Amino acid sequence: MSILKNLNSFPFAAIIGQDEMKLALQLNVIDPRIGGVMIMGDRGTGKSTTIRALADLLPDINIIKNDPFNTDPFAVREFATEYEAEKIKIPMVELPLGATEDRVCGTINLKEILSGGINSFEPGLLARANRGLLYVDEINLLDDHLVDVLLDSAASGWNTVEREGISIKHPARFILIGSGNPEEGELRPQLLDRFGMHAEISTIREPNLRVKIVDERISFDKTPEVWFKKYEAEQLLIQEKIEAAQKLLDHVTISDAFKFKISQICSELEVEGLRGDLVATRAAKALAAFDGRMEVSIEDIRRTIVLCLRHRLRRDPMESINSGNKIEAAFNTFFLKD
Amino acid sequence: MSILKNLNSFPFAAIIGQDEMKLALQLNVIDPRIGGVMIMGDRGTGKSTTIRALADLLPDINIIKNDPFNTDPFAVREFATEYEAEKIKIPMVELPLGATEDRVCGTINLKEILSGGINSFEPGLLARANRGLLYVDEINLLDDHLVDVLLDSAASGWNTVEREGISIKHPARFILIGSGNPEEGELRPQLLDRFGMHAEISTIREPNLRVKIVDERISFDKTPEVWFKKYEAEQLLIQEKIEAAQKLLDHVTISDAFKFKISQICSELEVEGLRGDLVATRAAKALAAFDGRMEVSIEDIRRTIVLCLRHRLRRDPMESINSGNKIEAAFNTFFLKD
Amino acid sequence: MSILKNLNSFPFAAIIGQDEMKLALQLNVIDPRIGGVMIMGDRGTGKSTTIRALADLLPDINIIKNDPFNTDPFAVREFATEYEAEKIKIPMVELPLGATEDRVCGTINLKEILSGGINSFEPGLLARANRGLLYVDEINLLDDHLVDVLLDSAASGWNTVEREGISIKHPARFILIGSGNPEEGELRPQLLDRFGMHAEISTIREPNLRVKIVDERISFDKTPEVWFKKYEAEQLLIQEKIEAAQKLLDHVTISDAFKFKISQICSELEVEGLRGDLVATRAAKALAAFDGRMEVSIEDIRRTIVLCLRHRLRRDPMESINSGNKIEAAFNTFFLKD
Amino acid sequence: MSILKNLNSFPFAAIIGQDEMKLALQLNVIDPRIGGVMIMGDRGTGKSTTIRALADLLPDINIIKNDPFNTDPFAVREFATEYEAEKIKIPMVELPLGATEDRVCGTINLKEILSGGINSFEPGLLARANRGLLYVDEINLLDDHLVDVLLDSAASGWNTVEREGISIKHPARFILIGSGNPEEGELRPQLLDRFGMHAEISTIREPNLRVKIVDERISFDKTPEVWFKKYEAEQLLIQEKIEAAQKLLDHVTISDAFKFKISQICSELEVEGLRGDLVATRAAKALAAFDGRMEVSIEDIRRTIVLCLRHRLRRDPMESINSGNKIEAAFNTFFLKD
Amino acid sequence: MSILKNLNSFPFAAIIGQDEMKLALQLNVIDPRIGGVMIMGDRGTGKSTTIRALADLLPDINIIKNDPFNTDPFAVREFATEYEAEKIKIPMVELPLGATEDRVCGTINLKEILSGGINSFEPGLLARANRGLLYVDEINLLDDHLVDVLLDSAASGWNTVEREGISIKHPARFILIGSGNPEEGELRPQLLDRFGMHAEISTIREPNLRVKIVDERISFDKTPEVWFKKYEAEQLLIQEKIEAAQKLLDHVTISDAFKFKISQICSELEVEGLRGDLVATRAAKALAAFDGRMEVSIEDIRRTIVLCLRHRLRRDPMESINSGNKIEAAFNTFFLKD
Amino acid sequence: MSILKNLNSFPFAAIIGQDEMKLALQLNVIDPRIGGVMIMGDRGTGKSTTIRALADLLPDINIIKNDPFNTDPFAVREFATEYEAEKIKIPMVELPLGATEDRVCGTINLKEILSGGINSFEPGLLARANRGLLYVDEINLLDDHLVDVLLDSAASGWNTVEREGISIKHPARFILIGSGNPEEGELRPQLLDRFGMHAEISTIREPNLRVKIVDERISFDKTPEVWFKKYEAEQLLIQEKIEAAQKLLDHVTISDAFKFKISQICSELEVEGLRGDLVATRAAKALAAFDGRMEVSIEDIRRTIVLCLRHRLRRDPMESINSGNKIEAAFNTFFLKD
Repeated sequence: MSILKNLNSFPFAAIIGQDEMKLALQLNVIDPRIGGVMIMGDRGTGKSTTIRALADLLPDINIIKNDPFNTDPFAVREFATEYEAEKIKIPMVELPLGATEDRVCGTINLKEILSGGINSFEPGLLARANRGLLYVDEINLLDDHLVDVLLDSAASGWNTVEREGISIKHPARFILIGSGNPEEGELRPQLLDRFGMHAEISTIREPNLRVKIVDERISFDKTPEVWFKKYEAEQLLIQEKIEAAQKLLDHVTISDAFKFKISQICSELEVEGLRGDLVATRAAKALAAFDGRMEVSIEDIRRTIVLCLRHRLRRDPMESINSGNKIEAAFNTFFLKD
Repeated sequence: MSILKNLNSFPFAAIIGQDEMKLALQLNVIDPRIGGVMIMGDRGTGKSTTIRALADLLPDINIIKNDPFNTDPFAVREFATEYEAEKIKIPMVELPLGATEDRVCGTINLKEILSGGINSFEPGLLARANRGLLYVDEINLLDDHLVDVLLDSAASGWNTVEREGISIKHPARFILIGSGNPEEGELRPQLLDRFGMHAEISTIREPNLRVKIVDERISFDKTPEVWFKKYEAEQLLIQEKIEAAQKLLDHVTISDAFKFKISQICSELEVEGLRGDLVATRAAKALAAFDGRMEVSIEDIRRTIVLCLRHRLRRDPMESINSGNKIEAAFNTFFLKD
Repeated sequence: MSILKNLNSFPFAAIIGQDEMKLALQLNVIDPRIGGVMIMGDRGTGKSTTIRALADLLPDINIIKNDPFNTDPFAVREFATEYEAEKIKIPMVELPLGATEDRVCGTINLKEILSGGINSFEPGLLARANRGLLYVDEINLLDDHLVDVLLDSAASGWNTVEREGISIKHPARFILIGSGNPEEGELRPQLLDRFGMHAEISTIREPNLRVKIVDERISFDKTPEVWFKKYEAEQLLIQEKIEAAQKLLDHVTISDAFKFKISQICSELEVEGLRGDLVATRAAKALAAFDGRMEVSIEDIRRTIVLCLRHRLRRDPMESINSGNKIEAAFNTFFLKD
Repeated sequence: MSILKNLNSFPFAAIIGQDEMKLALQLNVIDPRIGGVMIMGDRGTGKSTTIRALADLLPDINIIKNDPFNTDPFAVREFATEYEAEKIKIPMVELPLGATEDRVCGTINLKEILSGGINSFEPGLLARANRGLLYVDEINLLDDHLVDVLLDSAASGWNTVEREGISIKHPARFILIGSGNPEEGELRPQLLDRFGMHAEISTIREPNLRVKIVDERISFDKTPEVWFKKYEAEQLLIQEKIEAAQKLLDHVTISDAFKFKISQICSELEVEGLRGDLVATRAAKALAAFDGRMEVSIEDIRRTIVLCLRHRLRRDPMESINSGNKIEAAFNTFFLKD
Repeated sequence: MSILKNLNSFPFAAIIGQDEMKLALQLNVIDPRIGGVMIMGDRGTGKSTTIRALADLLPDINIIKNDPFNTDPFAVREFATEYEAEKIKIPMVELPLGATEDRVCGTINLKEILSGGINSFEPGLLARANRGLLYVDEINLLDDHLVDVLLDSAASGWNTVEREGISIKHPARFILIGSGNPEEGELRPQLLDRFGMHAEISTIREPNLRVKIVDERISFDKTPEVWFKKYEAEQLLIQEKIEAAQKLLDHVTISDAFKFKISQICSELEVEGLRGDLVATRAAKALAAFDGRMEVSIEDIRRTIVLCLRHRLRRDPMESINSGNKIEAAFNTFFLKD
Repeated sequence: MSILKNLNSFPFAAIIGQDEMKLALQLNVIDPRIGGVMIMGDRGTGKSTTIRALADLLPDINIIKNDPFNTDPFAVREFATEYEAEKIKIPMVELPLGATEDRVCGTINLKEILSGGINSFEPGLLARANRGLLYVDEINLLDDHLVDVLLDSAASGWNTVEREGISIKHPARFILIGSGNPEEGELRPQLLDRFGMHAEISTIREPNLRVKIVDERISFDKTPEVWFKKYEAEQLLIQEKIEAAQKLLDHVTISDAFKFKISQICSELEVEGLRGDLVATRAAKALAAFDGRMEVSIEDIRRTIVLCLRHRLRRDPMESINSGNKIEAAFNTFFLKD
């Protein structure tokens, strides 16, 4: 089976210069319990392109044929022989600006009820995103309540819809990816805190790199087939590393000294709650797994800790130091000065 | 029957460092007339985890099978022989952000009425919470009117729904637990005053304690069974102490001198109304009962009075002393300086 | 027949220290034309408890059995022999926060109309309050239009509902009791002026009194039967005084000199309109009747005039003197300096 | 036929001290083309009482029996013999606060349309007010659009309702009386200008007069029959004067010199448009007719001009002189200094 | 056929002192492509009266009998023999304050669709205004979107309604006349610019003129028949001049020198776009035609240019010179200084 | 086939002096992947006229007869023989101010569903615009969400509508043209950035040019046929150049040095993202193709770069230099100073 599933999407391997965003996405795919990623950055920096490319890279999944919830046929033990299975591309759902709660969560089907039939459920976008990715562009413009629904669903893995006494619950496990432009305002800290990681991307300034990206885009638009060939090997490599990491993850360990230092950093930075400590540990493990190692290194922590803590610092409107630098300084103090 | 009902919840006994919140919850379970608890604190401090763990700890209840109101079969004397009973986990209902009044209180079923059938009622969350706990996260974001409905229902033990001349009333006795983040604003004092107790929690700063909590979380996520075993004895002990305290409560007494001092403190602190005096007395009795004593001690009052009065002080925007300290100072003046 | 109708309510006689509120309520019961009372005061000062206790104290009324408008069977002369009568507790209706106009006034029954039946009316809370009390807690949070509906209905004794050309009108005579907390803002002066009296209550500061009230509450919750016995005689006495006063009222007189002085006070205080003069005269007469006298005394006026005028003074944001003191000063000038 | 139609209303003749309001109402009844009156004044000054009393004073009208539009049977020439006539009290409609446009104008009956019947119209308050008075208390709180509808209807004598291509038009001739409290804000000048007259009333300060009014109110409440007798002659006199004036009106003349002076005053006062000149002329004629004279006197103009122009002056927020005084000064300059 | 069609309207010829408004209206009637007129002025200055009078003056039109779109029977060539024609007064539609888009544009008839019938259209006010005048009083209070609909319809001569895939389009050629009071705010410049002309009217100050107008109004109200006779000849003259001008219009020419000067003025005054140049040329031609001349004179331009450009100047909040004066100054510079 | 399809539209060739807008429109027609154009400018500058003229100039397209989506019959390979084809004018859809999302995107037909029929779709304006132009006047007044829908559809070439579980997707490839007046506010930068080009137009000041345009307009209104003849050759030339350019486009190349310089300019100007680089390259190629060249020249870049970057610069409220000048300066630095 070729990985060239979709000639419309840019290959993930070919995306240049957005290392922070790519790293955050890869780690979430390896350990979905990291809890999703929020991407903040200038417009036109390829956020949507990168996320679609990631979805393209991921292995297909088996589902019961035509099932709107993407149910795994091997998870339905008793009736497994009766269902026909099919392989589909991993679902990658984009939440449209202005989507209603009905659209997102699904609705109890009124038509059926009025005609005296049995109650049936029209699944929403959360059903479609099950076992895949849910991408919300400009999430900072979304109604708080809907963000809350998304985060609850991502955290619990379930979506519950209730109406006139009828309650329907279906699995909705997905990696939540939000993106936004800092000029349009932030999410409430309450909501931001519930995203596992927070990546920042900015416009590339180097003209040669810009030319290269523009060239590839124009070349890709003209002859996608030729162009995919060029990146096939690289794509396969990433794909294999991710799949291997998913298997290795449970066997990766982290030393007590490192755990203590992570908590020292969180405490020093006055990170509210313990979610920061937890995610930093998980992200470091996922990175070790991606590199095929079974022991978390200082470098794993260094590369991930800013992504995990940046959005959990209290904002001090007077301070001019950027969050990332403060976290790096704390990292240096506790990890490098021993 | 094992107490390990739910492998998804953290054991209550294993929760570290949130003593104030744990105490307030335990006392409300012992004497529901204390009137619920409002928990204010930083995000990510395990409010939801703790409350779910408490629910897990409480004894199962008997209900009439499939009854949506969780009716006690022994309370329906005449027909008791006809109903089949079942044992269910004590209900723990979480009110979703953005819930409507219909959803909370239930609705008169329009479908039935339009089809000429008899009027029927679709119970809401208040029915489901009967004889259990109702948890409202971010209650400060809820519509005032709905908070009022919840408080009225919690206080009276009844929920009444009316529509087009039809009135339905069903029991709705539950312990109301609200939580909120102080950054998102407070409830109106009018509403806050009607909560029996007010617990404040804050982030743990000690790195070793942080590591311990993160470790346990990760360990619990990996092997919940093994991990529950470790806390089984401790869980059983708390469960037994609560059940014993519920029985002892009516026999606990408090001296006139102590009652007078409680009222002196309330008057000195300019607590509006008498609800503060009443709750402080009840909480101290519940704590004595939890410890298996029949007489309220000074220590019982010291440990509970801040929780009972903190949210009933007039706020003075100029003053820098925190409410808790003012109450403790008043406690020292009246109780310790004799 | 025992007066201990309702073991859930505190006896009116046992309520301590809220003399102003109690007096205003009693006088309105004696002469409903006083026009209701608005009670402003701190939260937790027993407003609801007192009003429920008052309702409990009042004599039962005869109504046509099951009549939703509480019609007096003796008022329906022609068909009196055909109706079955029943005795009910005097209605005491509490308006819930967030009640709609439909809920309050009743609705023309759409269900009936759609099924081709005759138009029928689903009575609202105003029907239920007929011949009784209507209590609106936090009336300052109610929509102005609804307050206007309540005041119109209380003043005229009728409730009119119209819809699609159908008009229904039913008696709705009740004593309107509103309450509010001054921290939450006042009613518009326009609406406030239409309440007959305005009582202010505040928290009791004396610790012994506080202990006494808390003790009685706890004792009452434990053994209401025992506790009611203790107050039975006192309750009966108040009940008898009220009934006697209702009969005596029409025979009470007030001297021309006193009437002139009341108007002098109103004019001096720049009370807008004449409602103040009218209510002050009526309240003084009702108090005389309560004490079994047939002539209004200076003391009757002194005890009632602040309650009648306090909410009718122009507010001067600069002035620090409280309205009550200004009225008392004017009373002293005109009544005591002769 | 006795004039004592309604024992619930105070007799017009017995109303004391509100001469300006009474005059404006009488003149509008004599010449409805004056265009209604807006009454501004303190609360509790008897606006509603006075207007209801006026309605009570006016002669009954003949209508086609049960006709919802109060049609005059003599105006329907062809079918006059077929209709049964009835005499009703002149309609006096009060517009409730919060009335919708449907309620005011009437609605095309959807029920009829859906059942395939002929389109029928459910008349609104404008139909009921036809040939009578329409009173809107607190008109300054009404939606601008609805005020516009009322003024258009009052000016044109017709009400038009359109819906889904069906258009219904019925006569709606009435005298529009609005009232408001200056503390609650004014109408837009655009709307105010369309009221013919503008009366201001204020609280009576004289204690003896206050006592007198209170006494009469209490006396009236006790024994209305006795009390009406006392005013019967006076009521009859006013009633006769009004009826005579209505007949005389068309024959009253005003000198060219007076007309010129009225226009000089309007021009001097920078009254926008010519409505002021027109109404002032009509009001003076109506007053002459009320006094049984056929020629307008200076006194007629002096007594009415403030009522006609007061609301048509540009407001100068800096100026402290009250509008009435400015108009009187202009009157003196042009009429008395010759 | 007499021109005295409507005894309710004042004759146009008899309107005194509003020359600017009258001129703008006449020119639009002669050349509807001028694009309507916006009239700003004080309230009570007879805007509505004048516009109604204009409508009264215009010749009747032939339409297909009962046709709701006022279709010209001679424009429907094929079926002309089948239709019955009728003569109606030129339509003059007044848009009520608060009219909805449905009301204005018409609606696709849902009733018909639901009953399975063919789709039918309920015409709105734009249909009724076809081939006539549409008058919108207080147009500055109208929703921007609706003003846009009116202007689009006036400009294109068509009204299009779409609903659920059904699209209906009917002719809607009318002269749009808006009016407003400057105190209530202006239209957005974007919308104002699309009106061909902009007339300003103000209150007449001269007392004799005021008396004259008031006299005529009162005299007209009393005996309209007599009064119309007096103006019949004058009315006929205007009517004939308008009809002749409509025919002559296409033959009127304007010199290149004049056209250049008009554009110089527009450029000098920084008039945005070219609509000003276009309308000024058309208005001057229409005025020449009204006077029976075939060549535009300087005087024609002088009398019309302010009306055409006044609303197209950029507002400079600092400048005190009024727009009209600036235009006149520019006119003098370019036309008179040669 | 004559190009004189529409006698109502002005010929594109005859439009004078709006070179920037005309260039942007032509280049988008040659390469729709440029991504549309936003036109900002004074009112009355002929924006709508120019866009309609452009549509008129474009070649007809073949569609399946009566197909609401304008489907190309040659794109439906299998059934091609069964369909009847027709030639239609290229669609040019104008989005009305106030259009709803239903109107724009189409709706799932409820009527069909309720009657038990198969689900059918009522296409909206996006269907009608397929393979043509979509023009949105005053796009800055449109709801952000709707602008987002338009831009998504323009970018992806598809429109998706979902309702109650039914999802419909149809092709919607069009060139999006927005226009606005700078006085009415800008689009959010987020949305603006997604338009390929941004043209600015201003009023012509030269009187001779103004006269010429006015003359042509008046002449065109009088005798459109005569007038079209005059421009026929010129129109044909433009039409041919556009068609040739569309074919040549894929063969046009740009040197690496030029690409590098474009990216240097973008980087120097701090253009966010890479969309600017991409569009500038595409626009330069389209201009080369329009001129029949196969190699991009410096002049191609100079003439297009301002149009491509102007709306992508950060606004600096303090800076007085206009965006266009800054871009030209950067162009000179990098292209001319070698």
